[in-house]
Amino acid sequence: MGQKGPGLVKQVFIVWKPDRRSPTPIYLQIADRLQHLINQGEYSPGSPLPSERKLAELYGVNRSTIVQAYTELRAHGFIESRPGSKTRVSLHRGRKDQTLPPEWHRYAENGIFLPNTPFLRHIREALAQNPSIIDFASGKLSLNLSPVQEINEIMRNCIYQPEPENDSILGFPPLRRALSAFLRKYRGIDASPDSILITSGSQQALYLITQCLLSPGDAVAVESPSYALSLSMFQSAGLRMYRLPVDEHGVRPEGLRTLQKKYRIQMLFVNPNFQNPTGTLLQQERKRLLLETAGKLRLPIVEDDQFSLTAYDINSPAPLKAESDAVNTLYIGSFSKIAASGLRIGWIVAPSSVIKRLADARRQMDLGFSVIPQQIAAEFMESRYFDPHMDKLRQELIRKRDKAAEALRKHLGDLVEFTVPQGGLHLWCKIVPEVTDSRLLDEALRQGVAFVPGSVYGAEAGYMRLTYARPGAYDIEPGIIRLASAVRNAVTYKKI
Amino acid sequence: MGQKGPGLVKQVFIVWKPDRRSPTPIYLQIADRLQHLINQGEYSPGSPLPSERKLAELYGVNRSTIVQAYTELRAHGFIESRPGSKTRVSLHRGRKDQTLPPEWHRYAENGIFLPNTPFLRHIREALAQNPSIIDFASGKLSLNLSPVQEINEIMRNCIYQPEPENDSILGFPPLRRALSAFLRKYRGIDASPDSILITSGSQQALYLITQCLLSPGDAVAVESPSYALSLSMFQSAGLRMYRLPVDEHGVRPEGLRTLQKKYRIQMLFVNPNFQNPTGTLLQQERKRLLLETAGKLRLPIVEDDQFSLTAYDINSPAPLKAESDAVNTLYIGSFSKIAASGLRIGWIVAPSSVIKRLADARRQMDLGFSVIPQQIAAEFMESRYFDPHMDKLRQELIRKRDKAAEALRKHLGDLVEFTVPQGGLHLWCKIVPEVTDSRLLDEALRQGVAFVPGSVYGAEAGYMRLTYARPGAYDIEPGIIRLASAVRNAVTYKKI
Repeated sequence: MGQKGPGLVKQVFIVWKPDRRSPTPIYLQIADRLQHLINQGEYSPGSPLPSERKLAELYGVNRSTIVQAYTELRAHGFIESRPGSKTRVSLHRGRKDQTLPPEWHRYAENGIFLPNTPFLRHIREALAQNPSIIDFASGKLSLNLSPVQEINEIMRNCIYQPEPENDSILGFPPLRRALSAFLRKYRGIDASPDSILITSGSQQALYLITQCLLSPGDAVAVESPSYALSLSMFQSAGLRMYRLPVDEHGVRPEGLRTLQKKYRIQMLFVNPNFQNPTGTLLQQERKRLLLETAGKLRLPIVEDDQFSLTAYDINSPAPLKAESDAVNTLYIGSFSKIAASGLRIGWIVAPSSVIKRLADARRQMDLGFSVIPQQIAAEFMESRYFDPHMDKLRQELIRKRDKAAEALRKHLGDLVEFTVPQGGLHLWCKIVPEVTDSRLLDEALRQGVAFVPGSVYGAEAGYMRLTYARPGAYDIEPGIIRLASAVRNAVTYKKI
Repeated sequence: MGQKGPGLVKQVFIVWKPDRRSPTPIYLQIADRLQHLINQGEYSPGSPLPSERKLAELYGVNRSTIVQAYTELRAHGFIESRPGSKTRVSLHRGRKDQTLPPEWHRYAENGIFLPNTPFLRHIREALAQNPSIIDFASGKLSLNLSPVQEINEIMRNCIYQPEPENDSILGFPPLRRALSAFLRKYRGIDASPDSILITSGSQQALYLITQCLLSPGDAVAVESPSYALSLSMFQSAGLRMYRLPVDEHGVRPEGLRTLQKKYRIQMLFVNPNFQNPTGTLLQQERKRLLLETAGKLRLPIVEDDQFSLTAYDINSPAPLKAESDAVNTLYIGSFSKIAASGLRIGWIVAPSSVIKRLADARRQMDLGFSVIPQQIAAEFMESRYFDPHMDKLRQELIRKRDKAAEALRKHLGDLVEFTVPQGGLHLWCKIVPEVTDSRLLDEALRQGVAFVPGSVYGAEAGYMRLTYARPGAYDIEPGIIRLASAVRNAVTYKKI
């Protein structure tokens, strides 16, 4: 529990303040408050309490008031202090028959979910604490690239229709019809509305597939590097992951047959178009080979296709699912990376036996989700706003990509290597001199810039994913300058 | 796969029609379409195809056209027919080297999710197929009891604010602040915004608790009968469930200590106020005893409190969580049963260590959900619409309850026993003569009325849950009349 102390201070105390007009002395109000928190199980027996100085600051009182409150609690056996050590909740407080809270700590360690990747948690916390950090880490669009005004316009004219239309566990039927037309028009995919399941973003789509179609111990093949390798979700599902290397032309399919024979691979996860994190586009010949190999092995492919519509200079590359023999492919898409992550609209296209199974399981998880964002998404897709939004998005992404590439060449040209991506939101950078990921990340956060270390995605040390779509256009060069100084410091440090 | 035939017909073919202006003959278009569906894995090798008559109807063609299409497919070895048997997809179709789709069927049997309760699936299917069924089965408000106009009014004035406010994984901060005030005002619960996690309905709250705070094999205590016993979710999580009996004063807490000692119970799930399905209110003395026993055992209680605000003639009964010593209680609530199920807003109140853990796991599942319904819910709770809505809801529920009780007395008075509920949406009925649940349900659906058999909730045979909140007020007596004739038929049948 030790390391949770500071977090708790911020979370628990922020709303409570002593009442200066109350007849109860301030120090007693504070003692009561702390006792309440201890009773509620916020602080377990043995866990440290915040320092007097910190609490005084938070409650806006003198430190001596906190000293008095702690003295009071000590007198009643609720807390203990030893010289040179933190004040802690008593292990055996007061009377024997006093009831204790459950050992929440122990419960919180249960269950099938492994904690999320430490690097990602670290970055999230740094970003939350310090808004001045220039953010190349969050893998999403900047707010000004979202069609916020358009969504507001649609919302103003939207009529809430809770039933009976909403009653399908597959998702709001008009949205599935709109998606069926959308997939045909923009992705060349022939999917009936009943072979589409609406999910809460692509994250839930992946979660349903890993939890419902696979069993703990099953082997799966993933790209390396890959977004999947950053997802504790795969490990929480108890899957064994085997890697297919990604180079500048996307994933290399040759190893698939060997992997399958050796480890009895049950499913393959790929992101062929503008892959996250490398930004690469899978070569047409490799697409064919992948489909043929998987077809012969009767191996399902899960195709994650979130970035295709951002293609900059070429037509949107076709997904595997659009091929006539893509019998094996479960297809995942979402609006989060091309429109509004705030809508949380994702989808799976699959044979109806699979869709039925996923929908039935989903009923146990959340009974589906609100019809309102689904209505808005359906109307947005079919509105006159959609194509202009996509055009604007592409132009802005090109502009940001160019700024990022230029700044990297200018300020880090001697230290990094990268390929200029032709779509997507990310730029994948190799740092030429030897650096330690954690050292570089710490240094970058200190300099006021965030990125995601490549090791999060299963790459060896010395790679970075830079999401140029995320910061404001005018923050890109300043961000790269900060990054350059972080890289130089990290490299220097290594040399010493 | 056999029984999936008719379902597939409806789902897959509904959007496709042959193109009468195409130069390709209709029968060949149909053959191509079917081959495509077979290749996509919609029909696996060996599975039956729809009858010629059925397909002819669906595609709006003569039966002879389908006969031609099937002949074509048979010629190419895609399908097989034997006299007196259905036409099926060939087990070994065509050339040896042809790729086959994955065995989707096998994948669909994987994973940790058990299928949902068969009775509930059966009822859902019947309701979907036949809208004239009077529905006492769906456990939710009728549409006219939802504040649809108020929500539309709020939505019209709502401004989509995707970030940075939305960025908390605990849920939209203004909604958590509004809920903190709501819980204090209406439920007597002192919860800071940071001890509240917004969930996709109470279903996701329960799912997170069962998946994250418990491990497979753990023992839990549940009320019997109980909503929990209808949730395959508990079984999917691998929990062993032990029962505490519910009588007319709610759950009996005396057995808890024995259960705990015998089976090492890890958690207790209760619904003290207007319990689902029995509608009972837990007696004050029992509430005290429950809290004391759980406190001494350091046993967490999960309190599901969805119905309290519907209390008809009395003040809203206090939740366990409002007691000063409710240290052990994780509290679950939702808007679905008192306002709008279409918003899918639920919440958990818990110590922050637990909230953090649940939020971290949830990040793997769906990354949280759309800010829009959260904004609407926050504004609705704080609006001038909330109290009048609740007053209207209570009046309408009383009216519906009275209609249901009166109709039961009038048309089934000799055959059923029940207590008139003082809140909630449900009426729990014992059928005096011996009946078989499945027989009674089938008979009821045939008569055009739906209910949920008590056995779904773990009760012995011969109980029904009637959700009087669901049908229109003027459908209640006609529904009970249908139910009466179903009960009489089922009883008679039994006697023969």
